[in-house]
Amino acid sequence: MDPIITLTTDFGHKGPFVAVMKGVMLQRAPRARIIDLTHEIHVHWPAEAGFWLSRAFRFFPAGTVHVAVVDPGVGTERAIIAAEYANHIFLAPYTGLLPLVFEPGVEPKIYRMSDAWHARQDWPEPSSTFHGRDIFAPLAADIAAGRTEPQAIGPPVTDIVPSLLEDPEIQNGTVRGSVVAIDHFGNLITNIDQKLIAAFERPKVRAGGHELTLYQTYGQCQPGDFLALINSFQVLEIARAEGSAADGLGLGRGAPVIVWDDD
Amino acid sequence: MDPIITLTTDFGHKGPFVAVMKGVMLQRAPRARIIDLTHEIHVHWPAEAGFWLSRAFRFFPAGTVHVAVVDPGVGTERAIIAAEYANHIFLAPYTGLLPLVFEPGVEPKIYRMSDAWHARQDWPEPSSTFHGRDIFAPLAADIAAGRTEPQAIGPPVTDIVPSLLEDPEIQNGTVRGSVVAIDHFGNLITNIDQKLIAAFERPKVRAGGHELTLYQTYGQCQPGDFLALINSFQVLEIARAEGSAADGLGLGRGAPVIVWDDD
Amino acid sequence: MDPIITLTTDFGHKGPFVAVMKGVMLQRAPRARIIDLTHEIHVHWPAEAGFWLSRAFRFFPAGTVHVAVVDPGVGTERAIIAAEYANHIFLAPYTGLLPLVFEPGVEPKIYRMSDAWHARQDWPEPSSTFHGRDIFAPLAADIAAGRTEPQAIGPPVTDIVPSLLEDPEIQNGTVRGSVVAIDHFGNLITNIDQKLIAAFERPKVRAGGHELTLYQTYGQCQPGDFLALINSFQVLEIARAEGSAADGLGLGRGAPVIVWDDD
Repeated sequence: MDPIITLTTDFGHKGPFVAVMKGVMLQRAPRARIIDLTHEIHVHWPAEAGFWLSRAFRFFPAGTVHVAVVDPGVGTERAIIAAEYANHIFLAPYTGLLPLVFEPGVEPKIYRMSDAWHARQDWPEPSSTFHGRDIFAPLAADIAAGRTEPQAIGPPVTDIVPSLLEDPEIQNGTVRGSVVAIDHFGNLITNIDQKLIAAFERPKVRAGGHELTLYQTYGQCQPGDFLALINSFQVLEIARAEGSAADGLGLGRGAPVIVWDDD
Repeated sequence: MDPIITLTTDFGHKGPFVAVMKGVMLQRAPRARIIDLTHEIHVHWPAEAGFWLSRAFRFFPAGTVHVAVVDPGVGTERAIIAAEYANHIFLAPYTGLLPLVFEPGVEPKIYRMSDAWHARQDWPEPSSTFHGRDIFAPLAADIAAGRTEPQAIGPPVTDIVPSLLEDPEIQNGTVRGSVVAIDHFGNLITNIDQKLIAAFERPKVRAGGHELTLYQTYGQCQPGDFLALINSFQVLEIARAEGSAADGLGLGRGAPVIVWDDD
Repeated sequence: MDPIITLTTDFGHKGPFVAVMKGVMLQRAPRARIIDLTHEIHVHWPAEAGFWLSRAFRFFPAGTVHVAVVDPGVGTERAIIAAEYANHIFLAPYTGLLPLVFEPGVEPKIYRMSDAWHARQDWPEPSSTFHGRDIFAPLAADIAAGRTEPQAIGPPVTDIVPSLLEDPEIQNGTVRGSVVAIDHFGNLITNIDQKLIAAFERPKVRAGGHELTLYQTYGQCQPGDFLALINSFQVLEIARAEGSAADGLGLGRGAPVIVWDDD
């Protein structure tokens, strides 16, 4: 099977930024299949990148190399890490982005790129503002092509940076989380995993002053109704049947969402 | 030749929705070439998906598998169909989307996925809200990889759901159609096929209170002029030379467009 | 290595315009890897396409075929050219787009497609409004697949159309350029190459009434600060740390940017 590389960035679609990363990768790994995970991560907010990666990576074949470049600190002293986790490989700046991917019980192996290792590569001199192209792309390609591996790039990381996203708070059986992402339909996607509320007999959800009932799917409601559901990525989502919950409720990133058991 | 799969959705480019469909497909059909037809179909409006598919599919090689997921009824009782038509294969929800693709004279063979067939697959349990990833993606991949074929998935469909888009009305030689899609330039693309007005000696077009003449191409007019033309997909289009007809005329989806012969 | 084709257009992502180009190319060059350089060139402004191509093409493997279709004159008498330059191949309308790619010292070989050559191809009759699909796509594929080459398509071009973008003016040591592109972050990207100011000891930049200092990277400033830098494509860029310079300064395409040496 040809190697697969996914790209997650906040670069959008203007200009050739993503494309030149692909050009660099195809020079070094001509057989790689490069898949755009998304380039519309909220600008300068790595938490959304980590969140989506954590929810999406298992749908790709084992061995896929996932590159996440949401990197407001590019060119400063922040390091670059490569991680092996659950049979996938992840490359990202050494911030709280990747810790979002790692769940308790499965131990990641994380390595921090050393200057000495980087200096030995036949890569071009990196720019100060585009490590996606100058470091992440050749590294992803070299790993995908089997020319190197995460443990080769530098020492193991033992002090993991805290996740950029706080876990929901649970108090007296009430779960308090928040909106992490808004999709193209205006669905509000939260950080509340279904496991946190799976035991609730009559789950009730409050968001934006509305009290919502949990349904299975959009089509069970009348067009215009607000609803909550456990979505296909196993997190709580606030939606509006055939409409935009974000517009209708006036809610956005970070908005609090509360779930309790009304039994 | 590697198998080709096209994707037409209303998912936009936020989040990993399209990407995880590709991940699932590459797991089951590693050689597939996956082409994004568009992910900016007007949200929850399958008619535009059917329209564009009908106009675009012949530009792909015979045998291409075209997947259309514009599916507000996901998770409810609507069925899933696979169709063979004009040497291409189409997968879509069983709504009026695909009938837009089928023209009189070429008979489609349509099959409806049975629960029994679905239960026999080695696919994961489908979610209630993302059949694109959980049903359409594995089905497209299995067909592309030659592991199954449309007629295997269930009984033939004999009662075709009516097309979601009405054909233009023709009365006393006047053709009354409507705007189906607006492109990135603001061109207003109608459902009026060139065949309907091919016999007109002096075709005149009315849209948004303007009377327009039919030209061959944009560059025949002065910048700012409104014009009509038969576009490269063989339908009538309202355009503005070096501008946006949608903005300039204040017209959108569904706006009426009338053509008559002023001879 | 599979042949690589890049696409640069102002088509955006609505409708199947880019996709049908890919369908046509895969019919004629099934092994081609097709990379979207960008489809969000400012509509009807070929200068941005030429600018980005000139800065991006070297990140692709030698032999890549770069197709640029920003073509308000489609269907009128403007010709189509194929150029060999610096071991890459470029296809574009015969306007001032490609001259932006050619730098003094490296001579391009440019050929103009002749009607006679076009008539001998087994391509479909071209539409009047979509040469991207009907001429550029089959030509790119035939070149990528090794079935033809630029010099075959017609006579060499000796009279090069002037570049669509004026070079910066240099007077009394002061460099006056302008904003060519705005990226997804709101960074203002200028046509001032770093070579023009490399000798400056204390470069100062003026844009939108602000006087800016040159930094190495965004993270050297406080969030909200405006700054100038030489970006990863070796041109001067006006940025705002963790913000949008375009919004903050109220500047856009064409805005003047001045650099002088404050030594």
